[in-house]
Parts: sequence; structure tokens; C-alpha cells
Amino acid sequence: MNVAATLTDFALEARPTDAALAVLRLSLLDWACVGLAGAGEPVAGILHAQAAEEGGTGQAALIGSAQRAPARMAALVNGTISHALDYDDTHFAHIGHPSVAVIPAALAAAELTGADAAQFQRAALIGVEASIRVGIWLGRTHYQTGFHQTGTAGAFGAVLAAGCLLGLDAGQMGHALGLVSTRASGLKSQFGTMGKPMNAGIAAANGIEAACLAAKGFVSDPGALEDAQGFGPTHHGEGDMRGFDDIGTVWQFISVQHKFHACCHGLHASLEALGQFDGAPEDVRAVEITTHPRWMSVCNIAEPSTGLEAKFSYRMVTAMALLGHDTALRENFTDTLCRDARVTALRDRVTVQADETLSEMQAHVKITGQGADKSVFFHDLDADPGLSARQARVQAKAAVLLGSERARDIWRMIETDKDLTRFVAALTGA
Amino acid sequence: MNVAATLTDFALEARPTDAALAVLRLSLLDWACVGLAGAGEPVAGILHAQAAEEGGTGQAALIGSAQRAPARMAALVNGTISHALDYDDTHFAHIGHPSVAVIPAALAAAELTGADAAQFQRAALIGVEASIRVGIWLGRTHYQTGFHQTGTAGAFGAVLAAGCLLGLDAGQMGHALGLVSTRASGLKSQFGTMGKPMNAGIAAANGIEAACLAAKGFVSDPGALEDAQGFGPTHHGEGDMRGFDDIGTVWQFISVQHKFHACCHGLHASLEALGQFDGAPEDVRAVEITTHPRWMSVCNIAEPSTGLEAKFSYRMVTAMALLGHDTALRENFTDTLCRDARVTALRDRVTVQADETLSEMQAHVKITGQGADKSVFFHDLDADPGLSARQARVQAKAAVLLGSERARDIWRMIETDKDLTRFVAALTGA
Repeated sequence: MNVAATLTDFALEARPTDAALAVLRLSLLDWACVGLAGAGEPVAGILHAQAAEEGGTGQAALIGSAQRAPARMAALVNGTISHALDYDDTHFAHIGHPSVAVIPAALAAAELTGADAAQFQRAALIGVEASIRVGIWLGRTHYQTGFHQTGTAGAFGAVLAAGCLLGLDAGQMGHALGLVSTRASGLKSQFGTMGKPMNAGIAAANGIEAACLAAKGFVSDPGALEDAQGFGPTHHGEGDMRGFDDIGTVWQFISVQHKFHACCHGLHASLEALGQFDGAPEDVRAVEITTHPRWMSVCNIAEPSTGLEAKFSYRMVTAMALLGHDTALRENFTDTLCRDARVTALRDRVTVQADETLSEMQAHVKITGQGADKSVFFHDLDADPGLSARQARVQAKAAVLLGSERARDIWRMIETDKDLTRFVAALTGA
Repeated sequence: MNVAATLTDFALEARPTDAALAVLRLSLLDWACVGLAGAGEPVAGILHAQAAEEGGTGQAALIGSAQRAPARMAALVNGTISHALDYDDTHFAHIGHPSVAVIPAALAAAELTGADAAQFQRAALIGVEASIRVGIWLGRTHYQTGFHQTGTAGAFGAVLAAGCLLGLDAGQMGHALGLVSTRASGLKSQFGTMGKPMNAGIAAANGIEAACLAAKGFVSDPGALEDAQGFGPTHHGEGDMRGFDDIGTVWQFISVQHKFHACCHGLHASLEALGQFDGAPEDVRAVEITTHPRWMSVCNIAEPSTGLEAKFSYRMVTAMALLGHDTALRENFTDTLCRDARVTALRDRVTVQADETLSEMQAHVKITGQGADKSVFFHDLDADPGLSARQARVQAKAAVLLGSERARDIWRMIETDKDLTRFVAALTGA
């Protein structure tokens, strides 16, 4: 089986289900709100300035700016900005952030070609689904070696989304995928720097640039995903062909996870479990958190001293949540709070342990009260609460980040508009 | 030793020798002539069209076009075009093409900042030298796994060259190198397609974009070359720190090899050896070529049927050279010649064998005449014929590709002009 041919066939032929499109629309709202909220970050200012210097044909909009830019630059800027807060969606099948790599490429391509909302949503869904499938094919070895699936697998999703909108035929799509093979990139060593969100922007930019060149007749090697010196074999890919099982009939994207806490996604299952506890903080003598071993090296900083470090600390976010410092609000993650006496005292009563029988999306929280009483809570992020519950939570998050009215307006545009005019205008901050 | 700090120190402090700068000027002439000769290739038309669509601030010139473009686009276009003929220089220490990845980034940055010719030449030399050093650090394992050093090591050279001209300080240079670490790319699986020259363009574009962003305050991980999840460890790098021995005092770039035959560089030592034979083709009963084992899988197509395949065939180029079909002329590599009866008859009397005691730059050619007479010729590309002999050959190549007058004019600009105005104008084809 040729990987590029499988992906091309999927991109050109697949018929998305209503259920998958419904989740895609939730991700569009989530992406728009974390993007707009991230537009004030320093990295956004740097990218906006670069785009302004380069100028060019106003093919596509930039989040948080009245300026327009060529599609490739828009994808770079919007991918980076929307990942800047680390508050966007995650898929755990491959551990990557599908929306920030794919939606910016899809949106820029949609603006470039004048696509309508339905064409845009279909293309974006094809792209995010493909990025997850490619990520599974690359596997945990690829991720553990150091590759950021958001940047690597994401670029393959971005090019399919852009390619659909640009109307590439099967041959051109193969060349576009081949060209992405020789440039898809992204390292986890950038975590904690502006390089992390930039990995998403690079993926989106790689995708749209490759699609634009393929549309003009660019010839590359469509075997360059899996051949001997192709992307997978050279980048510690496992080549797990189960990644492509049932592609086009089952939509992995449906189980994408939206973040409802402004911290590392590895902490979320424990925070959700903790949310079931309704006692007072002074009743808590000890908290024991049990999680998947992978997270022990990712988000288990014992004594964080900065707001950024707090976002990667089981002990800190547990203390915050119990003391009523809402973990949904990114402004609550501060250096000052890391030194707060009540917080650190409670933090020091939290222990963390690994259990490999748990999945990466599961956690146990055991709370010991001042007496001998113990309560145990469990959460599995993978348990689907149903579309309406998910929608309510994403809308609530959007309301917190953007204000109720703006959040409601954007959701209405995503749900009902036939074209992208108002949605694009909303992203610019207009 | 921190790799980024070593490279930064080199870029900011090194004082190039006159000998190194003299070779750099030869490479500028060589680069300009293969670039102008490549501007009619299909991939050049595709890149020119993409640049025209995107438009933007005319920061830098495009080879073979009156249009100007933002510096990043110019680097992408010029890197790709100048590698399109596969006729540019090679360094065998790491097996990469230094000029096509670095000079386009340096030139775009020089135009962007209004640098003079001396500043441009120093920055270009820093970049090509650094790309070779990084390539040695990555090693043969990186290359054999499938990475095209032109794209990977080249990007690190490109960012240093651009960074010098943009006036980055040491901290900014570290961030620019860190950002390149998360995006440097290029696979050998693209060989034989437009993806191969594009790898050079991508390297140049990565370099200048990272330098521009670092100048604006972009923060990345300067340890991302060698740290656990850095570029080297994730990309099968050997981490051979001897790559940085004597950096700043010894200039590896001096032993760069210019191509004088329009075919794979692995064939050149045998063609140079064959050039010592002064007999007639009809006197030749058999030819035995002995070469380094690495080339047996690179350029030993036994019975090529296309002009492109002929460029990767010991037997074919040997027959061509003996029959007087000048291998310096790319127009001589045709599908028709592959079917020529005299050529194929002589081709079939050529045998090729490997000998691992030879270096990658050495070859033996044994010619058996119609009697029992045998002659053996040897050539080592690494044997330095001296600057004036090298200059004469590069100038002769330029004259063949561009015409004598134009070649002489460009050489005069490189040798004597204090600014880049006329050189840049010449590249546009004006």
C-alpha cells in the first residue's frame, strides 16, 4: 500500500459524517477563541511584524490584525498564534494538536480560492483526520525520539486540506505530499519557547506552499513518505499501517479533546477527577494522583516557580483547583501564585505516582481527609460526554476567553453562515 | 561544548583568510553561471510564478526575473534555481552542495540590509564553512540514512550567513540557530525530481526567515542542535565534535569542488582520469573504472535510456568522453545519445568496480588497447591544482554556459565591485 495514494484517495473521495463535521465545528470555535486570545502574545507581535515587512498580495487574513498577507504567510502566522497559549485541542491517538496545524492552511486556501463554508469545513476535517492517521503511522517511537507530531504529522494534514480546496487532482496531490515529505519538521526540544507554537505555523505553511506549487506542476517523489529514504524511515517512524485501517469510514477526529484547563493536557484527566470532589480545602490532609507513566517526565514539576512551570505541575494545579484558583483562566498561572503560602502548603500534600495500566487519558485522584476518610475519583478523557455537553463546555470556554457576546456571534457564524466573510472578519479582531 | 555557541562565536569573530575568500569568489562565479543557466528549467518557472502571485516588498532579486520579492521568497527561488541543473559546487567532507543553500540566503540578506560586497562575501564564506562543519558533525550516518546535507546542514550555514548581515548579536544568533533546528530538512528520496533542487531553496529560506524572526526577538532553544531531542540526535547525527576542530583557523571550504562535467559528481574523478588518455576511440578494446564503493549505488546505471539517467552512469559518460561528446555541455546528455549505436557499443566495453581503499574523490581508469597494451590513469579531485588553474577552469565553464563576454563581466563585478548593484542586476538577466 502506497501511503500517498491512500491519503490522496481519502482526500478526494471521503464523505464526512454529520457527527464528524459537528465536532469539527466545535474545534473551529475552540481554534478561533484560543487564536484571538493568543493574538496579544509576544510571538504574535513578531510574526505580525514579519508579515508587515514582507507585504504582498492580500490572499488571506491574519488573526488579530487588519493586515492581509499571501496565503503561505497567513498560514504561518495563524498556526503560530493559535498554538501560542497551548490551549488548543489535542488528539491522543498520536499525541498532536490537529487544529492549529491544519485549520490555518485550510482557511488560507479557502480564502485564496473563494471556497464556501461547507467546502472549507470538509477540507479542514479531511486534514485533521489525515494528520491523526499519519501520526498513528509514525507512532510513539517517532514522538518519543523527539518529534512534535503537531509539526510533522500536521504538515501532511495541512497539505491535504489545502490541496482539496485548490482542486488538486490525484497526481498533483501525490507530488504535494512528496514535497511535504522533504520538509515536514518539528522538535519537542522547542517546548517552553516560541519554537513550540511556531512548529504548528511551520506545518500549516509547509502544507499550503506545497499545494500551491503542486497546482503549478511541481514534481516530487510521491513515494517519499514510506520509501527507504522517505519521511517515515528517516524520522524514526514505526510505519504502523493500522493507522490507515478504516480511514474514510471511521473518523478518529471525533475523539479530539478540547482543553478546559489552561495547562498541559497531561494534567487534565486528574483535574477532571478532582472536580468531582466537593469538600473544602481545609478538609484535605493528602492527595494522591495516579497517572500514565508518560506524563511523569512531561508535567510533573514538583515545585514550580513560574507561571509557565505551574502549567506543567500536577501538584501545583491540584492545589490551585482545591483552593478555587480557576485553572480554566490562563491569567491565574502566575509566578506570584507559585509563592503563595496557602498554595504551596497544599501543594506539598500532593503526591504523584505512575501506573502503566492506566491509559494516557485516565487518572485516579485519592483524597484523604482530616479523619481516616478517603475518597477516590477517576476520570477518562476518552469517555464521550455527548455532543451537547461538549458543545456547552467549548462555548463556555469561548465565553470566558472572548466575552459571551463575541463567543456567541462566532459560534453562530460557524453554525449558519454559508460563506466565510464574517468568520474571517471576526478573526482579524474587527 | 555547545554547538550553537561555537557556531555563533565563529560567525561573529572569525577573520577569513585571503585564500578562503579567493575560493569563495570562484564559487560566486560558478553559482551565478549555473543559476543563470538553470533559470529556464521548468522548476524555475514554477517558483517564479509562485513569487509573482504572492508579490510583496521587493527586498531582493530573483535569478532570471525582473521581478523582486521578499528576502525569504528570493532565497527559496534562487536556492532552487541554482541547484536545478545539478551543476553547482560540492564539498566531499560532508557530501553537500554548500553554495546553493547559503549564497541565496546571504545575497537576499545583503540586499535587505544594503550590505556592501565585502560584507556579503564574508557572510557567505562564514555560511558555507559552517554548513560543512555542521555536516561533518552530522556525519555519514546522517547522509546514509537518507538526509540531503545540502538541505539539512545547509540551513545552519544559511542562517549564520543571514544572521551576520542582519547584525544579530550572540543571543539572537543562538535563537536563530535554535529555530533552524526545528525546521531544517531535506531527503535524498527527492533525487531525480524537482524536490532535489527545492531542498537547497528550502535551506536558504529557512535560514533567512529564522534570522529575520530572531532579529525581532524570537525565542527558541539554542541547545536544540545537540540536546537529547535536538536536531542531531533525532536525525541520526553522529555528533562528531571533530567537525568543529580548528574552526575559524582552517577553512574547509577551500577544498570545495567545482563541477566541470554536467553529471553526478561521483563520476568526475573518472572523467578527469580519462582526460589524460590521448588515444582514439577505435583504439579502445576495454575500459575498467575503479571507484569508491559509495558511488556504486549512486551513479552506476549500466544502460541509461534518458539524458537524466546518463548523468548517473559511469559507462555512458566514459563512452561520451572517448567519442568526443563534451561532458561539460548539459545539452549533450540526451535520450537520443543514449540510443546512439557508436555510444552504446563503446559503453558496453566499459566495466566498473569498487575499491574501498580509494577515497570518494579518487578513481582509476585502465584502458586496454586493440593489442595487449594497457594504460592506467588516476585522478584525485582533492589534489589542489592551485588557485589560478582552478580560476581558469571555472571561467571557462562560465564562458560555455553564459558566453565569454557575460562570463567575463560577471567575474569582473565579483572581483572588483565595492557594492552588489551590478552583480544583482546581472543575476536577473538584465
